[in-house]
Amino acid sequence: MSPQLLKQLTSLKPLGAVSQPLRCVWSFYSTSAAVEPSSPSVKTAVPGPKSNALKRDLDSIQNTELVRFFVDYARSAGNYIMDVDGNVMLDLMTQIASIPVGYNHPRILKALMDPANLSTFANRPALGMHPPAQFGSDLSNTLVTVAPPGIDQVMTMACGACSVENALKAAFMAYRRRERGGNPPSQEEIQTSLKNSPPGCPKLSALSFNNAFHGRTMGALALTHTKWVHKLDFPSPNWPIASFPYLKYPLEDYVNENKAEEAKCLAEVEDKIATAQKSGQPVACIAVEPVQCEGGDNFASGQFFQGLQDICKKNGIALLLDEVQTGAGASGKFWLHEHFYLRDPPNLVTFAKKMLTGGFYYTPDMRPTEGGRIFNTWIGDPGKVVLLKTVLEVIKEDSLLARTEDTGKYLLQTLLDAQSKYPSLLSRARGLGALAAIDLPDGASRDKLVDKLCHKGIHVGVCGSRTMRLRSTLTLERKHVDVFADRFYAVLKEF
Amino acid sequence: MSPQLLKQLTSLKPLGAVSQPLRCVWSFYSTSAAVEPSSPSVKTAVPGPKSNALKRDLDSIQNTELVRFFVDYARSAGNYIMDVDGNVMLDLMTQIASIPVGYNHPRILKALMDPANLSTFANRPALGMHPPAQFGSDLSNTLVTVAPPGIDQVMTMACGACSVENALKAAFMAYRRRERGGNPPSQEEIQTSLKNSPPGCPKLSALSFNNAFHGRTMGALALTHTKWVHKLDFPSPNWPIASFPYLKYPLEDYVNENKAEEAKCLAEVEDKIATAQKSGQPVACIAVEPVQCEGGDNFASGQFFQGLQDICKKNGIALLLDEVQTGAGASGKFWLHEHFYLRDPPNLVTFAKKMLTGGFYYTPDMRPTEGGRIFNTWIGDPGKVVLLKTVLEVIKEDSLLARTEDTGKYLLQTLLDAQSKYPSLLSRARGLGALAAIDLPDGASRDKLVDKLCHKGIHVGVCGSRTMRLRSTLTLERKHVDVFADRFYAVLKEF
Repeated sequence: MSPQLLKQLTSLKPLGAVSQPLRCVWSFYSTSAAVEPSSPSVKTAVPGPKSNALKRDLDSIQNTELVRFFVDYARSAGNYIMDVDGNVMLDLMTQIASIPVGYNHPRILKALMDPANLSTFANRPALGMHPPAQFGSDLSNTLVTVAPPGIDQVMTMACGACSVENALKAAFMAYRRRERGGNPPSQEEIQTSLKNSPPGCPKLSALSFNNAFHGRTMGALALTHTKWVHKLDFPSPNWPIASFPYLKYPLEDYVNENKAEEAKCLAEVEDKIATAQKSGQPVACIAVEPVQCEGGDNFASGQFFQGLQDICKKNGIALLLDEVQTGAGASGKFWLHEHFYLRDPPNLVTFAKKMLTGGFYYTPDMRPTEGGRIFNTWIGDPGKVVLLKTVLEVIKEDSLLARTEDTGKYLLQTLLDAQSKYPSLLSRARGLGALAAIDLPDGASRDKLVDKLCHKGIHVGVCGSRTMRLRSTLTLERKHVDVFADRFYAVLKEF
Repeated sequence: MSPQLLKQLTSLKPLGAVSQPLRCVWSFYSTSAAVEPSSPSVKTAVPGPKSNALKRDLDSIQNTELVRFFVDYARSAGNYIMDVDGNVMLDLMTQIASIPVGYNHPRILKALMDPANLSTFANRPALGMHPPAQFGSDLSNTLVTVAPPGIDQVMTMACGACSVENALKAAFMAYRRRERGGNPPSQEEIQTSLKNSPPGCPKLSALSFNNAFHGRTMGALALTHTKWVHKLDFPSPNWPIASFPYLKYPLEDYVNENKAEEAKCLAEVEDKIATAQKSGQPVACIAVEPVQCEGGDNFASGQFFQGLQDICKKNGIALLLDEVQTGAGASGKFWLHEHFYLRDPPNLVTFAKKMLTGGFYYTPDMRPTEGGRIFNTWIGDPGKVVLLKTVLEVIKEDSLLARTEDTGKYLLQTLLDAQSKYPSLLSRARGLGALAAIDLPDGASRDKLVDKLCHKGIHVGVCGSRTMRLRSTLTLERKHVDVFADRFYAVLKEF
């Protein structure tokens, strides 16, 4: 470095005071970095030789059976991911739906390099005891501004499973508070709670749905019913499970059948609640995904969710909408449940993935009345809230909700067109915004399709038993869909 | 910014190629930042008016009852924390024992500003499917180098509770694998697992100890027995709980009594295991902290833990040592259980806090034999592993284990001296490295002492019912202990 440069830079202000010159440098530096390619480019098998070698190394430390390929994140950009063998793929799975605005978005790089954020990244606090000065305003300027309509209470958490676990706890507390009618807990409750025993640890349950996925810690896992690899060998509370609607497509051809299917499922929910009550394990909470993702991209109507809310209200049960995969703008509205026009806000809304931080929103009746009830050492990570701030700015400035709605319609039409051309291969095309899916006749043909797409530079996911799952960023455009369509048809022709 | 400066900087290499000039700039910039004060300085009540105002604001969004004060992290340095009212305190609680090398350590700031790390911070991957190119070598150069003796398998996780949850799952799987004798799971097991029912979700249990703390998600919480605020109203599996030794101090005066106490607890463990077996809920795992921290800084001897391991081996039970608070060098050895000279490595060792990333080590028999069994979207955060790399370098280069051992002895002697001068007020001085504790006659006098210390600029914690808990960084020196001692005696005189 030249002496002049060093001299100029050493005159900068100390940490804490934001240094405008250096910010300019970094702003320039970062925006010059990553440029999205215009099309995929696959040179090797996927995984290629470099990925396979890295996988062998990592496998000496941990089971890597599910590792698909290793990634060169520094050279991935926008909607394109580059693996370590130099293969460039349009990414329509985006780290299990957790990349909001693409790889190496210049605004995220800039936020990471902003000296004003440095102490937040460097000093992770015990948020419940010693929050950073700006934590309240950071929440007000981020999570509160995008809160689901009618809700203004929010807690951060580290990940999706933790968010579900703690939302459940809020529901259990609220249920028991109401049962106690404002009285404090008894000494017997306090003592038995320390021993894992009733009445302190009451026989309450949470109802979930077949094919649901809510996470893989013990409480969240008791709500999860997708694959045996998630569940086998793990003790679980025997909480009630109801059927989730399985709709016939195209929806307009099966209006009555689908209405009957949803009514049947709602009746089953009521039945399970009554049975649980009788068996001494009353339901305090119904947990449900607005769209069942891992379980097969199963959609249900707004009427179904309105019906669920009615059942909750009638029975004094909290409604937990798990928006970990569906929130953060993925549906074209910020929260997918906004499409349902519920009469009242859901009691609990969990988030993670594209929100970058985990956490949950809750109505005032779900708010703990004593300190330290929802608590752990970190309670999330303010560094992730800083990055979320940037993501929300980008969503707003670039009108990404509108773009996601538009691109989603275009993508769905692409799937519908393909389905009409290949009716024996494709069915049940469905989607909303950045969530899209289509079914194959069986799991084997689905897996073959996904693999062939990958080798043409389109990276997609799977869910359920025979569904191809697409999960894009919010920055996907029609031009990307055209690239997908081109490769998709090429693969279909080969089938 | 001058045109020349801009020109020189804009000639830098693009992202991904490490830019040496810019690294030099940031190296200089960051090392010039935070200088540790030489003594505390308290100007207002704690919390002061600014903290109280921020707390009122934040309380409109979430329950803030446990918020002690808001922190100016940019102006905190080393072992000193500065609150938003400008009060500077020697921090002997360090974010519930989760700051390894002090606030704004220049090396951590440098790592955050290193362009080579930027894409890791900007693109959080789904680690189990698409790890970054360097993830294997990052693990090999960090977590593997400090693995507990005899263990080389490790998974990252997001937080301490998640780490315990997943370590439990590894233990449950290993138990059932052995029971199946190498056979695959039956169709009945696979089907029932999706329904939360046996045999797929078996009636297994994990044994824990009175006054244990292992986290607050459902599985970890079933092992936790400290305060009712952690437990009340939450359904829990009714897993067995044994007594943890309560030792009399000074240890050298109560050798036989303490030996008898530990033998009694071990006998109780064996008894609980037999009872659980008979009741059809066999124990697959014993979870234990090497020192019970939240529960009152309860130490037990190496012989006790050797005895526990013998019981585990005899009964085919996994031993899970929860080192979330005790690991990462806090005891003067990297893992506290290294002081126990166990005959074999423990099966599972969990970590978080000062490790910056959560996770757990496991012996080969605990390794899942199918992919995706221990899995979630993020499975930790490679950005935290990057910071851990820096922390481990600092620990090694600055010989911080030796320093922690030395400073810990000096601190313990300080507590012992104070105890001998104030025998009616202080008792049971105990500690190891950065973990130290002393008891007051009751909770009220303990809380009064802690509050008075805070107003003299010494920030300490509490645990159990009447214990003052000290948890320093690994960079604490004798000079800091002298500052503590000076204020401690001043407070004791006022008592």
